Order: sequence, then C-alpha cells, then structure tokens
Amino acid sequence: MPKKTTVGGYLIHRLEELGVKDIFGVPGDYVLGFYDMLVESDLNVVGTCTEAGAGFATDAYARINGLGALCITYCVGGLNTLNSVAGAYAEKSPVIVISGAPGLDERARSPLLHHKVRDFDTQKQIFENVTVASVAIENAESAPHLIDKTIDACIRHKRPVYIELPRDIVNLSCAAPTPWKKRAPMSDKDALDEAVTEAAAMLRSAKRPVILAGVEIHRFGLQNDLLRLVEKTGYPIAATLLGKSVVRESHPQYLGIYEGAMGREDVRKTVERADCVLILGAFMTDINLGIYTAQLDVSRTINAISEGVSIKHHLYKDVKLKHFIDSLTRAKLGPKKKGKLRRRVEPKPFKPRKNRPLTVARFFARMNEYLGERNMVICDIGDCLFGAADLVIRKQTEFISPAYYTSMGFAIPATLGAQMRKRHLRPIVFVGDGAFQMTCQELSTIARHGLNPIIFVLNNKGYSTERFINDGPYNDIHDWAYHKWPELLRVGWGAEAHTEDELEEHLTKATKNTKNLSIINLHLDPYDRSQAMERLGKRLSERVKPKK
Amino acid sequence: MPKKTTVGGYLIHRLEELGVKDIFGVPGDYVLGFYDMLVESDLNVVGTCTEAGAGFATDAYARINGLGALCITYCVGGLNTLNSVAGAYAEKSPVIVISGAPGLDERARSPLLHHKVRDFDTQKQIFENVTVASVAIENAESAPHLIDKTIDACIRHKRPVYIELPRDIVNLSCAAPTPWKKRAPMSDKDALDEAVTEAAAMLRSAKRPVILAGVEIHRFGLQNDLLRLVEKTGYPIAATLLGKSVVRESHPQYLGIYEGAMGREDVRKTVERADCVLILGAFMTDINLGIYTAQLDVSRTINAISEGVSIKHHLYKDVKLKHFIDSLTRAKLGPKKKGKLRRRVEPKPFKPRKNRPLTVARFFARMNEYLGERNMVICDIGDCLFGAADLVIRKQTEFISPAYYTSMGFAIPATLGAQMRKRHLRPIVFVGDGAFQMTCQELSTIARHGLNPIIFVLNNKGYSTERFINDGPYNDIHDWAYHKWPELLRVGWGAEAHTEDELEEHLTKATKNTKNLSIINLHLDPYDRSQAMERLGKRLSERVKPKK
Repeated sequence: MPKKTTVGGYLIHRLEELGVKDIFGVPGDYVLGFYDMLVESDLNVVGTCTEAGAGFATDAYARINGLGALCITYCVGGLNTLNSVAGAYAEKSPVIVISGAPGLDERARSPLLHHKVRDFDTQKQIFENVTVASVAIENAESAPHLIDKTIDACIRHKRPVYIELPRDIVNLSCAAPTPWKKRAPMSDKDALDEAVTEAAAMLRSAKRPVILAGVEIHRFGLQNDLLRLVEKTGYPIAATLLGKSVVRESHPQYLGIYEGAMGREDVRKTVERADCVLILGAFMTDINLGIYTAQLDVSRTINAISEGVSIKHHLYKDVKLKHFIDSLTRAKLGPKKKGKLRRRVEPKPFKPRKNRPLTVARFFARMNEYLGERNMVICDIGDCLFGAADLVIRKQTEFISPAYYTSMGFAIPATLGAQMRKRHLRPIVFVGDGAFQMTCQELSTIARHGLNPIIFVLNNKGYSTERFINDGPYNDIHDWAYHKWPELLRVGWGAEAHTEDELEEHLTKATKNTKNLSIINLHLDPYDRSQAMERLGKRLSERVKPKK
Repeated sequence: MPKKTTVGGYLIHRLEELGVKDIFGVPGDYVLGFYDMLVESDLNVVGTCTEAGAGFATDAYARINGLGALCITYCVGGLNTLNSVAGAYAEKSPVIVISGAPGLDERARSPLLHHKVRDFDTQKQIFENVTVASVAIENAESAPHLIDKTIDACIRHKRPVYIELPRDIVNLSCAAPTPWKKRAPMSDKDALDEAVTEAAAMLRSAKRPVILAGVEIHRFGLQNDLLRLVEKTGYPIAATLLGKSVVRESHPQYLGIYEGAMGREDVRKTVERADCVLILGAFMTDINLGIYTAQLDVSRTINAISEGVSIKHHLYKDVKLKHFIDSLTRAKLGPKKKGKLRRRVEPKPFKPRKNRPLTVARFFARMNEYLGERNMVICDIGDCLFGAADLVIRKQTEFISPAYYTSMGFAIPATLGAQMRKRHLRPIVFVGDGAFQMTCQELSTIARHGLNPIIFVLNNKGYSTERFINDGPYNDIHDWAYHKWPELLRVGWGAEAHTEDELEEHLTKATKNTKNLSIINLHLDPYDRSQAMERLGKRLSERVKPKK
C-alpha cells in the first residue's frame, strides 16, 4: 500500500473496504472533482433524478447492506436529502452523507458564492440535527482521522453521519489508510451478568413468556442470535411493524405482527396475556404500538435495545443488545417450552371473481399467495403498509418500510436502493397514489439500471389514511394514468386494473416481464381500506380533532 | 370585530389582511385541524404533490405578491421544503412557513410519536438556519404577539420565517387581532443626508455615470422609485441577472444584463468604463458577476442595498434603500444626461429553416420574437437561464428565476405559484431536462388548476452546464418522452421537436391551446450551448479542476 493517497481517495478506500459497492446521488459543480474519483474507483455511481431519491435509495441500501453512502453537492443538493436522512436517523439506518462544498480558498475571496444560504457552515449545522456525527474537512492532515471517526460513529450507532468535502481539499495529499480497525462495542461485564441473571430468573418462573422483536435486530445483524434464542427456548415470537420479517414469517414459533388493537386479535392476546414479555430491539413508537392501543404491563417486561436493557422499571445502561441476547441464550432458562402454539389458520386459496371491483383486503389476500422466496417487499406509508402487515414474508429482512418515521414517497427510490444491492430478488412494491406522486421520477433510475420490480399503485385518488382521520377536499389528488410511466420512460410494462380478473391477468404478464419494470395501476374506491386502517383511523381521529 | 378568536383563526386573519390569497402545501395528520380552518377561510388552499413543490411555488408567489405562505405537516413535510426555503432566504423572498406539530399534551405522554427525528424542537432548530425568525407557539396567550412579530420580520427583511403550530393549540381561544400596524423601516436622518450629499457630488462630477439595478428593487417594490430616478437623470441602466426585468427591457435607457464577461460586450463596456456606477439593490454574487469576470472598481461605485449604503470603501449602515433612491432623485445631480445611448441593434426577423436541427441560440432568438405583453417568463437553472438572459422582457417583474441560489427544479412549481397569482399572464417556461425531472410532478397541480403555461423542455439528455465544467458519465440522464406528460395527467397538449420547422408548427398549436398546459420536448445536441454558457463553463472549469 502506498504511504500517501488523496483525501478523496482515502474516503473512497474506506467505503470500499467497509462493503459499500454502490453510491447514490446527483452531481453538482462543488462535487464534480470527487465524482471523477468515484467514477475511477470500484464503486458504482448511481445517478438519481433527485437528491431526495438518492437519500431514500441509500437508506434502503444501508438497511440491507449494513452501510450505505450518498454523494451530493452543497446546499441545493444536500438540503434536498434532509427529510430522507432524518428518516434514516429516526429508524436507525447507517447512511454516510458526503457533500461537496465551495473551496476554502474561494470562500475567502468571495462571500457570495452560488448555493450559499447564510454562512458557509449552514449546511453542516443543519445536518447536526439529523446525524450522530458531522464533520467539515478543513485540511488534509486531519482528514484521515476525522473520516475514520465519523464513519465509526455511523457503524456504531447505525445512524447517519455527514462528511463535507470542500472542492479544493479533495485532491490534496494525505496519509494512506491503514486497515480498518473494527471497534467492537463493549458491555460492562458486571452489569451484563446482573441483567442476564435477573432476566433469566424472570423467564424461568414465567408460564407464558413471549418474545417481541423489533427493527434493531435487523440493523445490528442479530437475526441469527435471535433465532438461536428463539429455538433454544421455544418461546413464541411476535414482531413489531417496523421489525417485520425479523424472523422468517413461516417459522413455526412466529405469531405475527403485534400492534395493539390494530393488529390481529390472536397475536394481541398472546402478547398481552404473557406473564413475561422479552422485548428485543424494538422502538416503542406510537404506530408500532397501534397508536397506544397496546397494553403492555412494564412490570412484566424485559426491554433490551441498543442503548441498554430495562427490566421492569430499572435500567442497565452499558449492556449491548448482542451480548444480552447471546448471554441469555447460554443462561439457564429452564426446560424448553413445548406448549402448543396456536395453529395459524391458513387462509383459503384465493379465487379471483370476474368483474368484482378490487379492494385492499382482497388484494393483499391475493398477494399473500403470490409472494415467493425470490421476492422482497417494499412498502410505502399509508394503507398499503397496514394492509401489508399481515403478509407472510418467507425470509428474514425482506420487508422494507419506514413504519416509524412514516415519510411518504419512500417506496420507489427505496426499491432502487434495495434491488441495486440484491439484484436477484424481485421487489414487490406497494405504494399509494399520493406517495407515488412524491418520488415517482426515480422510476427513471430503476428503468435505466434494468431493475425489474413489480409496482402496485394503490390508487384511491387521494390521501386515504387522512380521509379516515379527518376528511376534507385537501385529501383528494389528481388521478394520473400511472400505468403510462413506461411510455414516458420508453422502458417497462404497465396496465390498469379495476377488477379481480383484470388484476389476475396483469399479474401473469408482470410475472413474465422479468427484463424490466412493471407497474399496475389498481383502481380502488376512495373509501375502501384495510381492517387495520379502519381501527387506526378511529384512534387518530380522536386525537386530531381540535378542542373546541 | 369579535374580541376573541382562535390561534389558527388569528394567523389566517393576518394572512388575508396582508394580501395572501393562495396557500400551498401538502396536508398531514399533525396539521389537519388547521387545514380545516384554511378550507373554511377565504384563502385558496393549493395542494401540491410534494412539499418541495409547495416551497418553490410559494417562493414564486411571494416574489410577485410581496408575501406568500405554505402549510405542511411536521418533519416529513417541513424538512422536504428546506431547500426551497433556503433558496427564498438566499434570494430574499418573503415566505411564511407554517408547520403542524404534535400536540404539547401528547408529547408529554409519549416520547416516540411518528415523524419525530430527535427532539420535538429539531425541526424548528433546523429552520432557524434558513429563516429570519422562527417560533413554536406554545400557548394561546402569547400566540398573537409571536405571530405578529414573526410576520413582521418576514415583511421587513423579505426573507422566510417559520411558525410551528402544535395541533392542540390551533383551536384554543386567543385575543382577536387589531388592525395590522405597518411598521415602516426608518433611516437615520443624518446618515441618509450625508450619504445622499456624498453620492450626489460623485454623480454630478461624473461624465459617464451608469445605474446597475438588482433584485431588491423587485422585493421592496421600488420599481417606480427607480424609474423616477432613471428618467430624471437620464443615466443608462443595466440590470443584474437576478434582477432581470427590474425595468421594462424596452425602455430607451435600458442597456441589458450586466454579467461581466458572460454578458453582452456592449453592456460590459458601458458599465465597466463608467466613471461612477450607482448600484441599487443588487447582490454581488458570483453568477451575477459573471463568475468574477466583472471588473468594477470600488472607488467608483455607490452601492446601496437593503442593509445600507456603501460609497467607495465606507458604509452608511442605517440608510434604507427606498429613502436613498427617493432622496437621490430629489437631490441636485446636475443637468439631465442627454448623451446618446448606444442604439441597440434590433435582431433580424427570425426565419425558421426547414429540417434545421434546433440549437439553444436559435431557439432563444425565436423566443425573443414570440414573447408578448401577456406573458411572463419563468426560467430554471442551467443553459436555459444563460440563454434567456438576453430575452427582452416587455414589462417589469415578469422574469422569474433563482439566479443566485441556482437550485434545479425551480421552474415547474414556480410556474404554479406565479400563475396562481397572475392568472391573466401566460407563463413561458424554460427548463432543462435535468431540472424538469426533479420537480415534474407539479405539472399535475398545474393541470388540476387549469393553468395554461407553455413549457419548453430543453432536452440535451443530461446536465449540460456540468458537461462544460467537468464532463463525465454522471452528467448523462435518462431520455424521457417529456411531451407525454399530458397523457399521464389526462390533461394538456404535448409534442416533440427536432427541427426549427417542427418548433414553428408546435408553437402555433401551443399558442392556440389556451385552456390548459402545453409542453414541448426540444431535442438538442448534448454539446450545444448558449454563448454565455460557453464562457461560463470555461471560467468554472478552471475552478473545479482539483489541484494535483
């Protein structure tokens, strides 16, 4: 290895070394020098139509890959990624934001350079609010240390970081990288022992324990650790909505999604009647908890997340989630539970009926049969998420949705990011018409890269979730011929369906069209909705109504 | 007037009173209660496809109307507007951002509400970086005072402000508004007198004085003040690119756009050879100054902006732009200049040639003939801006472009905002393919509201400006059939043109299609460009090339 590299080269080396293969973004003049270096590197540069699209794509990529990176220009680029990076922060997705910036030299000469908002550090100050570390590189000497420290924070916290590269720094010479030192997070050994001892005692004496697993299992790559615990103990396991597919959903001990009164009644009963709930890596968020319809008695819970372990009402701070799960698996928990699990009622085979108008409920029943091992599910916000919650995901990790931050417009660019990482899995994408309109242009990037998702636009001509909370004319949107996007892009196949038999016909064609994207415009009644949304809407409308 | 109103009602009353007629945004559950109040008010609620679109639309609306407002939900909505609001900050456009937020009551009960990023005040902290005032309303009593103070800052500084309304505050009772007190900005009388005396003396002794006027003339509504000064003195006047159309461009004293070596040579010579340059309301930015090719000797300049007046190298701080212009108009400036102005060479009549491929230069030559009094020009960033700089705008204020902040994607949503305000003016829109792809969905909102712009997509299959700075594969983008948008929207008329005679034919049809939008896909050679861009590209590429 040479003793010297450039600042840009150093950063690229680290990305490659840490497993980033694709980088998303839109170029701009303050970052073109670095783009040249990216193009010359082994990284695959994926140019998106918008920076927001790059943000969502990178978020999805990072969820699957364990690390992702995007690269954009200063302010007019970076500020457009803010919402998607905020979502990655809220849902713990390890995204590295790399932004170009005016050269330090030219800043001194001229205060009003294009793209500047207020001060030259405005963008960095803004990103400090949505990242766990942010740095503006100001000289070549300190660049290697600062880059390493920032990337380390991203990996450790599984949350976004921000690196700003002034354009006159990128090509300056700096020390070549030494091999990346993986800094394994440490637990306080005594705290860990005490927490495990206490938890094991609670679990041993429980008659109906249950595990509730969440999204951090995905983020910290603990799926196999969890599976060992699940299979050793024999406990039934439920997942939160955000953690959906944390174990394969055909696993015999898997109950389903727990989301309070929004979810399936049998899952709710099993979880809420448990005498000990072992919560692993779950965010206790409003939507995860069925908008507070969840009834979990804290004095019967063990709640372990990446920041520490809470048992009943007390907290062990310096205990890492992985260490806790692994130690618990080795601990004496008493005999394996052999209690018979509630046999899931297998749904009846779906029979499409001729001329029967499509409904959300029947559509997802059909999809539940359709999904195979070679698919992944990507789901936007709204009724498609609630309707999709009970789909049976055959493998781990293959359900991607921003179920906590709930930013509309996630699905289309996330499809780009997810399939760039796993090209052999065909994405099945559920997106409402409102969400589709927000980021539809990234279909262009999907088309350009020869990806082959099947996209279902659940078209009910408006913001459906909101209709059930508080209806008004502002919830209606313009009805596009969504299935005509392939004509606009000159790539792909599209069709519209009003009835179950039309859906069936299009499904066959879309399945065969493996060479590029398929898009099906599903006409739904504006007031049709999933069961879960009906329950959710009622709960939310109680809150949103202004006090008179 | 009743003695009591609600917090939401108070804010709406102020918007109406201050001349806001349309409000742009996307609803979301944290703001639905306020949306209900908006719908019941006299304001016209314009739902956009994206919040970024609402931001650009409001910016354009505010530029024309003197004040604009947008209303979005918390974080997933607000953060999407950040780039457009930053642009309004950078270019001084008075935009009021109104964001919903979780109720104060529910925050206390549950820390992980959906859409929350880090803390409940994260969004406000972020907006503090791109606004001149920001406030989160926390109780009904202080709401009237805080709302007034924040709106006053918006009007005074012509820059964005941020008002956050928790959903449980909107309907609380508060004091009814008293009539708005217009707070006229004050100058320090002695400073004003001294500045005017000094400036007048400089101008009296100058033999070849010239006025260079900029965008603040638009923002502060000083077009007529400027015109009086221009016509009293007889001085020739040039405008900056951002200030284009600050005087009607057919005025006999108008020279053209001054932008250093990028602009027309005759304008450059007149301005740079002047022995006194009176600069009024211009941002001295890099692009305005032809990327520093401008040669202005500070010791011959009088430079008045909203923050104060600089004469040569000294500053008078507390002198307002309007007072300075008006006092200067009344001052003794010597005899009116009668020196003959360089007679503008009228371009030869445009003759389309059959089968001749379109070029940027010939296209704008054609447009220069086409533009009429019933049009306004809306221009995105890139070569369409540089090419459009020499168009002759017949009236004041009817050229809208983000020429300093230069955020791509401005034009389509800005067309929405601008024509909502001036429905009788038909927008002529110039947008590159890259910029079009960024915010194209707002065509839907344009279609929905029956607006009738003629949109020219300058399609050179990539980021053309960047190609001239630093070329690479990242500058190529996917070639859409842009003219098929009307089929997707089921509204409007579209066509594509490769040659001058095709353009001519489409121009006739688009002109006749007055009932809804027209979009023309102009196929251009990827390396074709305006003269101005050729010069600019050369200047920029010297800067962007990394130092080896």
